[in-house]
Amino acid sequence: MTDVQNKPQTTAADHGVAHMKWWGWGVEGVAFHHEDKPGFAPFVKKIVGVELTQGQHDTGLDFSQLTVPASRASTEVVDSLVQIVGPEHVDQGDHDRVVHTYGKSIRDLIRIRAGILERVPDLVVYPADEAEVQQIVDLAVASDVVLIPFGGGSNIVGSLEPMPTEERTVVSLDMGRLSKVLDIDEDGGLARIQAGGQGPDLEEQLNARGWTLGHFPDSFTHSTMGGWVATRSSGMQSDKYGDIADITKGLRVVRPGGVLAIRAVPSASTGPSLREMIIGSEGRLGVITEVTAQVHRLPEKREILAYLFPSWHDGLAAMQAIAESDARPSVTRVSDAHETAFSFATSKASTGISKVVNDALPKVLKAKGWDVDVMCLSFIGYEGSPEHVAQTQKAVAKIVKANKGMGVGKGPGKLYDQKKFDTPYLRDFFMDHGGAADVSETAAPWSKLRAVSSRVYAAANQAFDQIGVQGWIMGHLSHSYHSGACLYFTFAFEHGEQAEAEYDVVKHAIQQAFIDTGATVSHHHGVGLEHQPWLAQDVSAEGVAVMQGLFDSADPGRVFNPGKVTGA
Amino acid sequence: MTDVQNKPQTTAADHGVAHMKWWGWGVEGVAFHHEDKPGFAPFVKKIVGVELTQGQHDTGLDFSQLTVPASRASTEVVDSLVQIVGPEHVDQGDHDRVVHTYGKSIRDLIRIRAGILERVPDLVVYPADEAEVQQIVDLAVASDVVLIPFGGGSNIVGSLEPMPTEERTVVSLDMGRLSKVLDIDEDGGLARIQAGGQGPDLEEQLNARGWTLGHFPDSFTHSTMGGWVATRSSGMQSDKYGDIADITKGLRVVRPGGVLAIRAVPSASTGPSLREMIIGSEGRLGVITEVTAQVHRLPEKREILAYLFPSWHDGLAAMQAIAESDARPSVTRVSDAHETAFSFATSKASTGISKVVNDALPKVLKAKGWDVDVMCLSFIGYEGSPEHVAQTQKAVAKIVKANKGMGVGKGPGKLYDQKKFDTPYLRDFFMDHGGAADVSETAAPWSKLRAVSSRVYAAANQAFDQIGVQGWIMGHLSHSYHSGACLYFTFAFEHGEQAEAEYDVVKHAIQQAFIDTGATVSHHHGVGLEHQPWLAQDVSAEGVAVMQGLFDSADPGRVFNPGKVTGA
Repeated sequence: MTDVQNKPQTTAADHGVAHMKWWGWGVEGVAFHHEDKPGFAPFVKKIVGVELTQGQHDTGLDFSQLTVPASRASTEVVDSLVQIVGPEHVDQGDHDRVVHTYGKSIRDLIRIRAGILERVPDLVVYPADEAEVQQIVDLAVASDVVLIPFGGGSNIVGSLEPMPTEERTVVSLDMGRLSKVLDIDEDGGLARIQAGGQGPDLEEQLNARGWTLGHFPDSFTHSTMGGWVATRSSGMQSDKYGDIADITKGLRVVRPGGVLAIRAVPSASTGPSLREMIIGSEGRLGVITEVTAQVHRLPEKREILAYLFPSWHDGLAAMQAIAESDARPSVTRVSDAHETAFSFATSKASTGISKVVNDALPKVLKAKGWDVDVMCLSFIGYEGSPEHVAQTQKAVAKIVKANKGMGVGKGPGKLYDQKKFDTPYLRDFFMDHGGAADVSETAAPWSKLRAVSSRVYAAANQAFDQIGVQGWIMGHLSHSYHSGACLYFTFAFEHGEQAEAEYDVVKHAIQQAFIDTGATVSHHHGVGLEHQPWLAQDVSAEGVAVMQGLFDSADPGRVFNPGKVTGA
Repeated sequence: MTDVQNKPQTTAADHGVAHMKWWGWGVEGVAFHHEDKPGFAPFVKKIVGVELTQGQHDTGLDFSQLTVPASRASTEVVDSLVQIVGPEHVDQGDHDRVVHTYGKSIRDLIRIRAGILERVPDLVVYPADEAEVQQIVDLAVASDVVLIPFGGGSNIVGSLEPMPTEERTVVSLDMGRLSKVLDIDEDGGLARIQAGGQGPDLEEQLNARGWTLGHFPDSFTHSTMGGWVATRSSGMQSDKYGDIADITKGLRVVRPGGVLAIRAVPSASTGPSLREMIIGSEGRLGVITEVTAQVHRLPEKREILAYLFPSWHDGLAAMQAIAESDARPSVTRVSDAHETAFSFATSKASTGISKVVNDALPKVLKAKGWDVDVMCLSFIGYEGSPEHVAQTQKAVAKIVKANKGMGVGKGPGKLYDQKKFDTPYLRDFFMDHGGAADVSETAAPWSKLRAVSSRVYAAANQAFDQIGVQGWIMGHLSHSYHSGACLYFTFAFEHGEQAEAEYDVVKHAIQQAFIDTGATVSHHHGVGLEHQPWLAQDVSAEGVAVMQGLFDSADPGRVFNPGKVTGA
């Protein structure tokens, strides 16, 4: 892979906002390659039968092949928007409208690669500040125009696409110009951050003053503050920093006629939580313009250590024991046997993980008699004062040992830390070779995690059989809580002619397995359109009705991203 | 004081649910007395001019003096309720109806002592289980009857009283018979707890199996699981266990036609949080019947240590430094100079606090030259493994020292821990002697706490001047968070003829001071009726409108405790 740059490049330089490739993840010119990972191609060939050494196209797809439906925006609406933001910040061009049509789920990528563009936003508008957002919102309500707020475009549950039957003008409201850290209250670590700021840009602004948000979702390089809040995101260091719902203290949300402003106080007893209604609202309650977020001083010390466990069962038991203990690591993560094998296969010959395979592994096999096929790789992170890091590592080491695990040093964790945001590039590469791959994630109490995992494996394998493919599923635990944890699954197969339908079969099987084992439909990806079929099974029909009532009362004109979350 | 019993006594034995005194706090036969606290009466005489050595009546007030409005319930509604719960669980008696008319704010106590009973519930119903609650709810909706859920009756913001203009039948739905810990998932520490269980009863059930909820609000002895959730309660060990919003993982809420059920998962991304809409809803979204709560293994070790700081400024600085550090105590609390003086004055001659006064204080004054009038007493709690407790105490000691404080041992903390739930009895005793006293609490970022405190003092003193009384205000910090903390104020004065109006002047001055300094209207008492005037200033007019829309859509018939929180 060409080194991934920390700052996304601008593909639409005229309005100064960077976007991802229209057909896939990340920035133009960066792609996954496997030449330096000798084990990878044979591994993929073995598990899903896909031949990676043939048929690659590195340079992306041909935009000119697309048939983009014309914009339906009336001159009146366009003129009004131009009046508000200036002509250079209203874009009716095909490229920009296509970039704003989908997120980056496999369903989105299958469709865009197939040239399916059912309903494309009629224009994209780039406001400069909250006052302009207010004018746009008021215009939309007055003119019966649909508004879909757009952050980094990394959504993978269908939250960004216009409803196919929408006959009104649809405006994609790109928040990319609102990207500043406005202020830091250094006593409480409260940073006022504009909603459109993308991960690397915001961290750079915070780091420069000695602070970090500590929020690092897999989408970090191409997702935004507002998007994290709107979808209830969670980052890999959530064990220390919390989910975005914990990090979000204050909010400003533009609503028709005014701003819904929630003070950044540490905790409040002021009725049902408006903060927690906005979080996860996916644009349906208005446009988030500003978040007052809990930030932390950059830690004195930061380390991610790797461990091996003889089985998934032992790895889970260790994570549970850590969550119950007084130890507070910043990251807890353990891969199941499949994902462990995958990690070993994708490592470069020269890297830390290969070092585990070459150095630690033979020792383990010899000394402990472990079965390499069920062994599990774990990463545990530590942050804080050197004393705290040392105490926590000591406490964790004791728990790891009690659960039959062993430490394998700093090398693999360091590498994991550097490369953790690169995985989505792999998916595009895999698609180039006829593969389909995506993720499903959930959370459940500790008592249910083993059942969730087994049921998901059984369901996925049954689905692979049903569509007649050789499929692969793997998973890991991450984001530990006192009561349970998140399980995160990746599945892959070589798709046939009906890629989207085949994907649906697998995705549905896995999501239903979550619900049937008492887990949630999503731990941190949101609902959008893709997770709607399970929402009532998760939060009950009465719950969906109350949520629908909230949307209907807050947005009687159905202006704000209608159809998402609840479907109506 | 007669020893406070851990289990409230039943005052209405026929339906098996214990209630507090109709005229004041706690159980019959228990009251505050000051004979063993030689410094107390002179202190009170000095600060508010109230003479405690005269005019006491210990035995309560005379119920027969009250004029209780007759029940307006139709025979039809009564018969239907009797059908559902049985005749012994529908009470139309005056005593029971009066007990269910108010909570226990000073405004409530002033009114009940004056015999003011504007609108009394027409009857009280005691369902046995969720199925009966469902039938009651469906009946209420069908018959246009108002339902006010009632837990322990400890509310102090006016959430329990019927609206004075309500012309429909008003039913107080007493949840006291649903008081069981139904189940504990011992892996995740998830306990299914019925909403009507009171603090001591629930802790006893949990303790018997080795668990604790860790939720100890001041109202603990007479408040319930459902009440804590409905008002966004917080307990004194929230630094470790979290606020009730953190503790609450799953919920069951009876709504017209069915149960809104939220799965107990550690975290979920399923749209706006229904869990966080129910929390704080004060009965307006339905009837909470069951909470799945995060419980914890009883800690191996538990200690509360006392510290002294030379000033409020230093005490706050120390608490902030602890919150920012890697140390995780279970309690952080520091009293300001006034409250410190009050603590010293209320201590028994033989207790730990007196020991501080007698032993540590002269030493401090001599060695450090502190000013006893501005010195501040602090309690910090520690829970967990002996190793964790030792590490945390060591880390805290370092911070205390860096902020000019000094440790004064275990004695005072032990006493504080034993007596922490007794304070409300003192208020009744004070009222017996012509005094009025109540509390106002808030939360704000660390950067604003000093300004909140000064402004509250100035506002309260100005209010005392306005009504022409000698008043007293004191406060403490408790419930620390990374971004800020709760400040909790107690105010007292000798009231005149217009006690309620005088109270209003002081209360309004303090609440407005919160708002004007960027703090919230309440950290953990809720909104009810008393905090409504500041809600829009706190969460914005747009926020109140969204909340009102939620209530209106969820309860178009205005059956569920109408008028509370938002006023409409």
